[in-house]
Amino acid sequence: MELVFAEYIGLTAGALTTAAYLPQVWRTWRTKAVGDISLAMYWAMTLGVALWLVYGIFIKAAAVIVANGASLLLVGGMLRMRIKYGRPQAAPKRDQYLH
Amino acid sequence: MELVFAEYIGLTAGALTTAAYLPQVWRTWRTKAVGDISLAMYWAMTLGVALWLVYGIFIKAAAVIVANGASLLLVGGMLRMRIKYGRPQAAPKRDQYLH
Repeated sequence: MELVFAEYIGLTAGALTTAAYLPQVWRTWRTKAVGDISLAMYWAMTLGVALWLVYGIFIKAAAVIVANGASLLLVGGMLRMRIKYGRPQAAPKRDQYLH
Repeated sequence: MELVFAEYIGLTAGALTTAAYLPQVWRTWRTKAVGDISLAMYWAMTLGVALWLVYGIFIKAAAVIVANGASLLLVGGMLRMRIKYGRPQAAPKRDQYLH
């Protein structure tokens, strides 16, 4: 009973931390502006989320598996856009901000 | 033995997804430019990571507790900066880039 309750908390947590990437993916898809977004963050996050997925499979925790499987798609998508739109020819000029 | 191995994977995963926020926090701290970053993402992420922490306490998973405790500080910091630097008077003018 207590473990079932914990799984509900886990599923809510997973739904939130996965859904969290949706507005960011949508914003980046729409604006193609990635100047304020860290490339290193999305490299580390993609690798880390993939490992969380493996961990979830090992400990057989449904919430960890589902949340990180879905997150991997969104974070991977952000990484791809950050690389694609971060190229000098594709990026908006930011020199006046990033001294 | 297998569970100990799983905890190592979990700790590596947690180290990566937590450390992932460091270059983003550093970049935002330095540039104060948040125009490309989604506010909704950091609201949902802060709440979601807090719930992952509660979940980790329930299922007594060390990796989940440590990783999400540390993430909460960094994600909360990003949320605070996104709000502070996202105010019209504080933000760099971005109108010429967003469409």
